[in-house]
Amino acid sequence: MQARVETALEHFLPSGSHLPARLHEAMRFAVLGGGKRVRPLLAFAAGEATGADAARLAVVAAAVELIHAYSLVHDDMPCMDDDVLRRGRPTVHVAYDEATALLVGDALQSLAFELLAGHGAARDAAAQLDMVRTLATAAGSRGMAGGQAIDLDSVGKQLSMPELELMHIQKTGALIRAAVRLGAQAGEPIAPERFERLDHYAKCVGLAFQVVDDVLDAEASTAALGKTAGKDAAQGKPTYVSILGLPRSKELAEELRREAHAAIADFGPSAARLSGLADFIVLRNF
Amino acid sequence: MQARVETALEHFLPSGSHLPARLHEAMRFAVLGGGKRVRPLLAFAAGEATGADAARLAVVAAAVELIHAYSLVHDDMPCMDDDVLRRGRPTVHVAYDEATALLVGDALQSLAFELLAGHGAARDAAAQLDMVRTLATAAGSRGMAGGQAIDLDSVGKQLSMPELELMHIQKTGALIRAAVRLGAQAGEPIAPERFERLDHYAKCVGLAFQVVDDVLDAEASTAALGKTAGKDAAQGKPTYVSILGLPRSKELAEELRREAHAAIADFGPSAARLSGLADFIVLRNF
Repeated sequence: MQARVETALEHFLPSGSHLPARLHEAMRFAVLGGGKRVRPLLAFAAGEATGADAARLAVVAAAVELIHAYSLVHDDMPCMDDDVLRRGRPTVHVAYDEATALLVGDALQSLAFELLAGHGAARDAAAQLDMVRTLATAAGSRGMAGGQAIDLDSVGKQLSMPELELMHIQKTGALIRAAVRLGAQAGEPIAPERFERLDHYAKCVGLAFQVVDDVLDAEASTAALGKTAGKDAAQGKPTYVSILGLPRSKELAEELRREAHAAIADFGPSAARLSGLADFIVLRNF
Repeated sequence: MQARVETALEHFLPSGSHLPARLHEAMRFAVLGGGKRVRPLLAFAAGEATGADAARLAVVAAAVELIHAYSLVHDDMPCMDDDVLRRGRPTVHVAYDEATALLVGDALQSLAFELLAGHGAARDAAAQLDMVRTLATAAGSRGMAGGQAIDLDSVGKQLSMPELELMHIQKTGALIRAAVRLGAQAGEPIAPERFERLDHYAKCVGLAFQVVDDVLDAEASTAALGKTAGKDAAQGKPTYVSILGLPRSKELAEELRREAHAAIADFGPSAARLSGLADFIVLRNF
């Protein structure tokens, strides 16, 4: 499944030999440098639960991952998190330069929408338009970019649990929910209450993902993480660990994993990959 | 017509009181600070030539202007042009901060696609998807962002005329062509050869726009321009003026204006606004 994601990304990114070559090389460097591919894997898994075609899922999965990849490139820039290491390699603005990193992120976002509007990602044009709208809303000021803005404002502040949750619902949750939704929409139409259950699964997994990230950031070494560890604490950013403590954070992740499983229980074997991903996300390092 | 553009932008931008408030305020600051609105006016004018509905045109015009506005916010940042003044006001990263400017640009791009996919901008979903694809391609690495990348690489180099043209065809031409195309698509279907003629008009106007910009940058004072003047020359960027000289650049702009008029001649009175805009773009300051 991971291989299908890599093949799709490789296929949809412009070749590094096309002009402007340096920009296209840098876009490929930003996206093809590995990563867990959680969002595209969720899209594929949700599509499996609704009987979606593999070619459609490749488009949807790639579009979601391009949005995620653009956000990482911009987040790493000096004016944001100022990170020099990502997935064990230099970040884009270090490997290239800041202006190129800015344009790489911008162009990856455009490419995500170009892909999603350009290939037969859904059963008809109306459903495909709905996908574009879903992804755009998830990426925008009331989704991922908005969550980043709240994150910026939160540095050095003591947030309450509801405030922290709201930030993460936008910052990471929105795109994870979009991944599951788009994957499901690529398949056969399903009843609203089944769609609702997939969405609840996505909410649990999205929150769990962030809780686990905070736990890993507090515990792991830079080498194991492939990115600079302990940065959140050093920057005075509120995290689940800083608010709940380590033991309670781990419990919360486990509770969310069980809730995610329960949400998709009646999908039966077609949701096996979704179940597996909930486990992978929560159990990846502890 | 200008008033309709402002009303549309005002309407489609999130309120500054919605969370995250600072991001939304900054998005409004970036977009609602005036400007010539050339792209949305071109969209409205092209729609007039194909009998498009005003409500559809408002969506299309706003989407195109949001892409333009995002590109200005990012271009002004320190790692790009490092401009502190835009339309006579501080640029977004000066009025707010760099991280906010980065997110403002990112969120404006998402909003453009959210709008274009979310409102009835075309006669059917398939045509609307085509609009999304057109705008995404025009904004991306083979359009506006790609032109920026070529621009970055060109600093301190002596470009040939074909190289300079290629850069501007991507950097400013692509979005101007998209504006005309989307405006026309919002109306009644027209024969391919008529569409072709509108596109040729857009190409001429796009190129003329850049030539005139270079002339103004070389001639005007900062006060008249509302942005820092003479920066291109100071940064060693190749321009029409640096390659062709001032008199020949002015002639070229005039030739392009005449060619634009010729392209739309047989549209008759329905193309009156398109004609007027070609005049406005070329004659605005000399």
